[in-house]
Amino acid sequence: MKHIEDVLQKFKDGNLDIDQVVKEIKSLPYKDLGFARVDHHRALRQGLPEAVFCPGKEKEEIVGIIKELKNKNHIVIATRAEQEVADYVLENLPGSIYHKKAGIISYGEFPEPVKTNYVLVISAGTADLPVAEEAIITLKAAGIKTETMFDCGVAGSHRIMGEFETISSASAIIAVAGMEGALASFVGGMASCPVIAVPTSVGYGASFGGVAALLGMLNSCASNVSVVNINNGFSAACIAAMIVKQAKA
Amino acid sequence: MKHIEDVLQKFKDGNLDIDQVVKEIKSLPYKDLGFARVDHHRALRQGLPEAVFCPGKEKEEIVGIIKELKNKNHIVIATRAEQEVADYVLENLPGSIYHKKAGIISYGEFPEPVKTNYVLVISAGTADLPVAEEAIITLKAAGIKTETMFDCGVAGSHRIMGEFETISSASAIIAVAGMEGALASFVGGMASCPVIAVPTSVGYGASFGGVAALLGMLNSCASNVSVVNINNGFSAACIAAMIVKQAKA
Amino acid sequence: MKHIEDVLQKFKDGNLDIDQVVKEIKSLPYKDLGFARVDHHRALRQGLPEAVFCPGKEKEEIVGIIKELKNKNHIVIATRAEQEVADYVLENLPGSIYHKKAGIISYGEFPEPVKTNYVLVISAGTADLPVAEEAIITLKAAGIKTETMFDCGVAGSHRIMGEFETISSASAIIAVAGMEGALASFVGGMASCPVIAVPTSVGYGASFGGVAALLGMLNSCASNVSVVNINNGFSAACIAAMIVKQAKA
Amino acid sequence: MKHIEDVLQKFKDGNLDIDQVVKEIKSLPYKDLGFARVDHHRALRQGLPEAVFCPGKEKEEIVGIIKELKNKNHIVIATRAEQEVADYVLENLPGSIYHKKAGIISYGEFPEPVKTNYVLVISAGTADLPVAEEAIITLKAAGIKTETMFDCGVAGSHRIMGEFETISSASAIIAVAGMEGALASFVGGMASCPVIAVPTSVGYGASFGGVAALLGMLNSCASNVSVVNINNGFSAACIAAMIVKQAKA
Amino acid sequence: MKHIEDVLQKFKDGNLDIDQVVKEIKSLPYKDLGFARVDHHRALRQGLPEAVFCPGKEKEEIVGIIKELKNKNHIVIATRAEQEVADYVLENLPGSIYHKKAGIISYGEFPEPVKTNYVLVISAGTADLPVAEEAIITLKAAGIKTETMFDCGVAGSHRIMGEFETISSASAIIAVAGMEGALASFVGGMASCPVIAVPTSVGYGASFGGVAALLGMLNSCASNVSVVNINNGFSAACIAAMIVKQAKA
Amino acid sequence: MKHIEDVLQKFKDGNLDIDQVVKEIKSLPYKDLGFARVDHHRALRQGLPEAVFCPGKEKEEIVGIIKELKNKNHIVIATRAEQEVADYVLENLPGSIYHKKAGIISYGEFPEPVKTNYVLVISAGTADLPVAEEAIITLKAAGIKTETMFDCGVAGSHRIMGEFETISSASAIIAVAGMEGALASFVGGMASCPVIAVPTSVGYGASFGGVAALLGMLNSCASNVSVVNINNGFSAACIAAMIVKQAKA
Amino acid sequence: MKHIEDVLQKFKDGNLDIDQVVKEIKSLPYKDLGFARVDHHRALRQGLPEAVFCPGKEKEEIVGIIKELKNKNHIVIATRAEQEVADYVLENLPGSIYHKKAGIISYGEFPEPVKTNYVLVISAGTADLPVAEEAIITLKAAGIKTETMFDCGVAGSHRIMGEFETISSASAIIAVAGMEGALASFVGGMASCPVIAVPTSVGYGASFGGVAALLGMLNSCASNVSVVNINNGFSAACIAAMIVKQAKA
Amino acid sequence: MKHIEDVLQKFKDGNLDIDQVVKEIKSLPYKDLGFARVDHHRALRQGLPEAVFCPGKEKEEIVGIIKELKNKNHIVIATRAEQEVADYVLENLPGSIYHKKAGIISYGEFPEPVKTNYVLVISAGTADLPVAEEAIITLKAAGIKTETMFDCGVAGSHRIMGEFETISSASAIIAVAGMEGALASFVGGMASCPVIAVPTSVGYGASFGGVAALLGMLNSCASNVSVVNINNGFSAACIAAMIVKQAKA
Repeated sequence: MKHIEDVLQKFKDGNLDIDQVVKEIKSLPYKDLGFARVDHHRALRQGLPEAVFCPGKEKEEIVGIIKELKNKNHIVIATRAEQEVADYVLENLPGSIYHKKAGIISYGEFPEPVKTNYVLVISAGTADLPVAEEAIITLKAAGIKTETMFDCGVAGSHRIMGEFETISSASAIIAVAGMEGALASFVGGMASCPVIAVPTSVGYGASFGGVAALLGMLNSCASNVSVVNINNGFSAACIAAMIVKQAKA
Repeated sequence: MKHIEDVLQKFKDGNLDIDQVVKEIKSLPYKDLGFARVDHHRALRQGLPEAVFCPGKEKEEIVGIIKELKNKNHIVIATRAEQEVADYVLENLPGSIYHKKAGIISYGEFPEPVKTNYVLVISAGTADLPVAEEAIITLKAAGIKTETMFDCGVAGSHRIMGEFETISSASAIIAVAGMEGALASFVGGMASCPVIAVPTSVGYGASFGGVAALLGMLNSCASNVSVVNINNGFSAACIAAMIVKQAKA
Repeated sequence: MKHIEDVLQKFKDGNLDIDQVVKEIKSLPYKDLGFARVDHHRALRQGLPEAVFCPGKEKEEIVGIIKELKNKNHIVIATRAEQEVADYVLENLPGSIYHKKAGIISYGEFPEPVKTNYVLVISAGTADLPVAEEAIITLKAAGIKTETMFDCGVAGSHRIMGEFETISSASAIIAVAGMEGALASFVGGMASCPVIAVPTSVGYGASFGGVAALLGMLNSCASNVSVVNINNGFSAACIAAMIVKQAKA
Repeated sequence: MKHIEDVLQKFKDGNLDIDQVVKEIKSLPYKDLGFARVDHHRALRQGLPEAVFCPGKEKEEIVGIIKELKNKNHIVIATRAEQEVADYVLENLPGSIYHKKAGIISYGEFPEPVKTNYVLVISAGTADLPVAEEAIITLKAAGIKTETMFDCGVAGSHRIMGEFETISSASAIIAVAGMEGALASFVGGMASCPVIAVPTSVGYGASFGGVAALLGMLNSCASNVSVVNINNGFSAACIAAMIVKQAKA
Repeated sequence: MKHIEDVLQKFKDGNLDIDQVVKEIKSLPYKDLGFARVDHHRALRQGLPEAVFCPGKEKEEIVGIIKELKNKNHIVIATRAEQEVADYVLENLPGSIYHKKAGIISYGEFPEPVKTNYVLVISAGTADLPVAEEAIITLKAAGIKTETMFDCGVAGSHRIMGEFETISSASAIIAVAGMEGALASFVGGMASCPVIAVPTSVGYGASFGGVAALLGMLNSCASNVSVVNINNGFSAACIAAMIVKQAKA
Repeated sequence: MKHIEDVLQKFKDGNLDIDQVVKEIKSLPYKDLGFARVDHHRALRQGLPEAVFCPGKEKEEIVGIIKELKNKNHIVIATRAEQEVADYVLENLPGSIYHKKAGIISYGEFPEPVKTNYVLVISAGTADLPVAEEAIITLKAAGIKTETMFDCGVAGSHRIMGEFETISSASAIIAVAGMEGALASFVGGMASCPVIAVPTSVGYGASFGGVAALLGMLNSCASNVSVVNINNGFSAACIAAMIVKQAKA
Repeated sequence: MKHIEDVLQKFKDGNLDIDQVVKEIKSLPYKDLGFARVDHHRALRQGLPEAVFCPGKEKEEIVGIIKELKNKNHIVIATRAEQEVADYVLENLPGSIYHKKAGIISYGEFPEPVKTNYVLVISAGTADLPVAEEAIITLKAAGIKTETMFDCGVAGSHRIMGEFETISSASAIIAVAGMEGALASFVGGMASCPVIAVPTSVGYGASFGGVAALLGMLNSCASNVSVVNINNGFSAACIAAMIVKQAKA
Repeated sequence: MKHIEDVLQKFKDGNLDIDQVVKEIKSLPYKDLGFARVDHHRALRQGLPEAVFCPGKEKEEIVGIIKELKNKNHIVIATRAEQEVADYVLENLPGSIYHKKAGIISYGEFPEPVKTNYVLVISAGTADLPVAEEAIITLKAAGIKTETMFDCGVAGSHRIMGEFETISSASAIIAVAGMEGALASFVGGMASCPVIAVPTSVGYGASFGGVAALLGMLNSCASNVSVVNINNGFSAACIAAMIVKQAKA
């Protein structure tokens, strides 16, 4: 804001007339009016951990970005990290940890959850676990308490109903399922909170890489289900975290 | 078979030699060897009622076909009959009945079910009822006992679980659902018999006229679910009837 | 729970032995163990208004359901009500109101919002308004405070940025847009709360009835965007309401 | 059920009043009321062999699950097993057999078919054989008699018609075909029993990985055809087995 | 060609030098060099009747074009003519005939077929008849002899096989079918000539307006099947006519 | 900018200190910094006529917007106007004109083209004319000279080649075609300028409402072809106008 | 036919009565009535070379089938043969030739074309050549004369028009093109014979593996274009060969 | 044109009569009338660099074509060149350069931009860079000045708005984006020139390899956006270059 102050001073001193000041102001809105702050502080403001999406980035690049982000954050995570990327990062960033199942590298200390509210992460089959784990580690990095229920296919629905309490007391639920994705509707009917459904690419043939689950979830007969992209455990976690952050403890 | 007998008689009488007979036989396999019977008797042999699919047929034509089929059958049904068609048929075929919800016209007496085995027809929402009814009337015409469970959305799954006995004792189950079509998987996991899933065109937006339900059912995590075309309650009933027909009473 | 108490009493009185009691208990879990309450109380428990989805229901049926639900609720709404349905309902339910743009009939008094937290409903074009209104009336019926921003196409993005404060202070945002659906991503980047994106069927040609917007929203580069079915303003409102309900005032 | 008996005893002894017992009962329905049994016994009750779906599971995990299931079953099968998985399992489970074409590992003795009813497995081309074999081995493990007809493309339909007897006497037919998938309709017209159609991913270009066959089968003009997912020979076998199990010998 | 002759004459007379003539020639290739003839004579040269595609044209316009084309042709047909269009045309073009089932108006005399070669038009169901008729009338207008086989669904395949001779002696076959479109493959295997498959929009649900039939036909296991657009009986007839035209009588 | 000037004056007068001014400036960037002008002046600045997209707007609303826009513009157009809308507007806006084929209402005087550069609008079939006309009227309203070539199907390609000069001298070409949309590629190869391809919904069956044309155009082997939405003649005209506006006369 | 003669003889001899003979005849239609001949002789009768489709067959199997077919044919071809398959076959079938570009192995002598009629194979880009070659070698094996035109993209249409004679004199044309597939329409308009269009998978992005070309060809504005599956040069050649075979020399 | 002159001379000399000349002229239009020139000079005339599309061409072939084109051009580029191809070309064409990120090999000197008009290439994410670079190098080879803005995701829209001047002063803008592709609409609203949108295959799940971005761009609410194929940076550059070439300096 240095520049504006100079301009204003010159104006007060009579070295600029009012038209010149107005023109000056008009010319800089996006650059100098502090808007950049919005961006720099977005992660912080949203209560989410800073995250690097690895695909399409060079290993060196990833290390560089993590380091830079770490300067202003307690913890940084890098998502969709393949083993090879992880090997490189762990070697070059001592102290970083590879959460293999989740495909996430974390760098820095996981914060303690400060609230008792929790996000329930529930998944349908073993093959859906990596997506569920992506959500769980992201939530952990955001300082959110999680409960988990795995292997909850709809064809064995009694198992899910047995956990009625855990479901009905959650602040937000992340339902991870491939194939027909019916888990979201099923859990949605039992829950009192938003259910963020994550379709996975688990399945074959007419699952079309997760499209069947995606469509099933979008057409849920439960009115508290919204959906994110196929396999996008990260966004589901961000949304759930935002819900918990503003909830009463 | 008249013709063959004539040929054979001529052969015995010496009016035809063996080569002529063989040639004669070769030339007629499909026309005269009784194959037509296969067709004429198909409905009977398969234990299914004779049925007329109305769309694309003239009203007069429908009445004509029903009359003809009635000659050799106790009951004939006409499916997908709109009100206008029904009005015409009922006027011209005294004694015929219009099952409005099912869109079926029946002509003749419904047979008494002879077995205690039953087909359970279970549907998800009110809007799925016409498809369920198409299946029910078809089964009734086939002399099959039915049990029904309506309004069984997966988001209210406890209602379904309360009917565990009815589900687990069925000989075949027809699960009718639109939207996400999760009902089939859910019931499939509780059943001990084949579940024939009928996706319906109920829904909007990303239901794509029943495609979401169709895909969900095809990707069922329950291994006893097979699927028929969208809204095809008739075929589902035919298949279920065939299962019951050969089951132990 | 009457029945269980009887059983237990008989057991204490020695008229039933322990095996008989256990068997009795096993046979009733879904029917009598109070589970029906879950269903009856779902709307209440979830903090959402009772709602009737009109399509596929008869006019008389709709009136009947509204009346019944009104017994236990302060307000009942009926969504996707066409003018003809509304005319009938208003005539038969004196005091009911038709919110034409939203396609919603309300019956009963809208509760006063008790919190200062609000849901921002932002929509892209004039044609998206009905969907936005469906969300707004639903939220109102749920006792949730709303702010609105209409006509916020991404091609005129400066208008949206001018409302930075309203966006960044919301507890939840419902972004309603057809065509390319870019609004969700754009707003997502500015918000600190979950954005529930509602694709609409507004558009033509390659919009494929809302599929373009739906895909755009699912692929949002903003990590706080989740999506509901095309035109599903109702579910978006339910989810947003659930977020506000558990938020600090 | 141990726990309930304790509770009841305490109640009888006067250590718990009736309200405490009711509360206790309400709190455990899914966990302790024997529902788990439903799950544990599902395979048995449905008359199907216990099966492990290999994709997405670690080799060690697969061996572990097979061993565990073997404790309560005469035979266990593991489907979609690649050669590498099979090598590991066979080494670690002496006595297990790899049915290479079917991609199935079996562990335990195949039961003798007890009925004369049979399932006919008919496939269109050589490339469809693995899917047909998956069905055949699964049926064998379920103790079901099978007949087979391979290489029955519709363009050489006379070959199929020559086996009219085998087709018309089956209790259930599994029709396996890729490309245009016409085999199901063709056989459906000749059969007196349900035809479970299995589209395969055999084909190229506009076969779209089995979608052409899938659509063809769903639109079958024969009313006794239902469909399972692309390449899903296993589910087809389960359904067929369930039909035979309840049929008169 | 009037203009060129003038130019050449001027050249011969010495009023134009050789460069001017060459320039002149270069400047007119498409307009005046008789190329228009290619277009004007295309129908004739290809041995096909002149045809007007009605949709999107005004009634008056259609009458005008028919009249103009009639000047140089013995017969003109107008395809996809709705009843309303036909009424107008018949009133304004005395002598024209409306072939209602085919949706074709013919104006002029149908030529006598000069060859014994014939095109077999075979269709699957009653609802496919209009498309078959479009092909038949077009062939008739092209002076091609036709044989017809209607109601030849693949589920009643014996009826088709009974006409082996008619199939195997055709010069070209037009196979018209909706639903799963299996007829093309089936007939293709029996024929010795090209089969032009016409998928129809007959069907519902997963027939997707003819897409299922289209894909089935494109994936035919018979190597003599090619496909035209859904419901395009006209093009099929044109192709078949071109085959017969160049065939030995 | 009134407000800023006041603030600055107060600052100069000593009634506000520098921090207060800076804060004031930060708080208004989008509202008062003249950004609104961007929007208001967009049409003008882009050299395009102000346009109202009619679908989804009330008749009264349309009249209102046209009137308002007319205040600052010489000409205003309303696109996609049905006859009924046009009737109302013409009655309420004396002097407005309905270009029926184009579906456009114009209000105000069409400007004289000031440049000799022209846009060539070329279309394939009669049914594509409305889309071509939408482009033509829009261009006319933008003061751009147009040349037109109608009925230029690729199957009669010699007609197009005969107009080589008109094609190769254009500043921009709008190629309008349905069905297979090949016109764009064909013309693209002959042109020296950008070709804006407009797929139309003309066609049936596998044209899928313009998708076939759209895909064909996107896959053009000519490297100067870009594509707009199906039937979007308006955007094509805007783009072409922008090219001509900045071209040398 | 041995069996029938025996039966007839027994009948004549009085050892079988007429009913027994008729029953006997009914039981054997498909097996013994010479129908197998249809199949054995199909390739011959259709005037096409025997062909083996390699994908999904073992190398040894391919060699075996080629050998067997060679017994009754002058030439056998194996299509879609990868280099590895070819290496094995050439080693084990001395005298066989690998046409690498076409992916075809031929075994036996190519027949001399006996007719002057020819098939024109025209392709769009270099990448389409393998498909064109598959058609060419197949035609050569069928004894059909071919003409070829390569690299005929529609964006360079004058090159194609320069070969007007070759196009207009062909008996059949095979048009091979990927991307937008416009070649078929373009050539269709110039030809007097059927054009068999072969879409190829050449392209990227929105070509969707050949779907764009496929749709373009199905929607051709030329009425003499039919289409085969993506990359299916073989079927196109079979159809073209059948046309030439019955054409006047 | 040699031949025509001879003909004309013979005509003048009386050795040919006027009919013979006309016939002669008619027979040669495409071959000899100089049309081939159109092709040879297309690149030049269009102001675009000659370019070779590498996929599907042999390495030797690519070198050959580049050499040949270089004879008549200052610079030749080869697009979509993989590292392996580049290695071979660079070795065999000393002086050629591999622009790795862009996947382009250039051979010859890049021309100096002669105009101050520029094309702005703006891209959304790091993974979109290769496509942006393809456009940039192509523009450079065409002698067009470029400005670039990378990493401009819509979720961080203030960054883009800060470059309002660069956007609003461009002659043409190439907007490169994957995922939801919203960048095109956003920039379109700020620009005064045509925006050529290039969807990229960047994304996963429901991005369907770039389809989501493609649809988003086609449905842009900004009327100055047109679209090219997924990842087609080359065509976008050609179109942008054509716009600049004819613009006032």
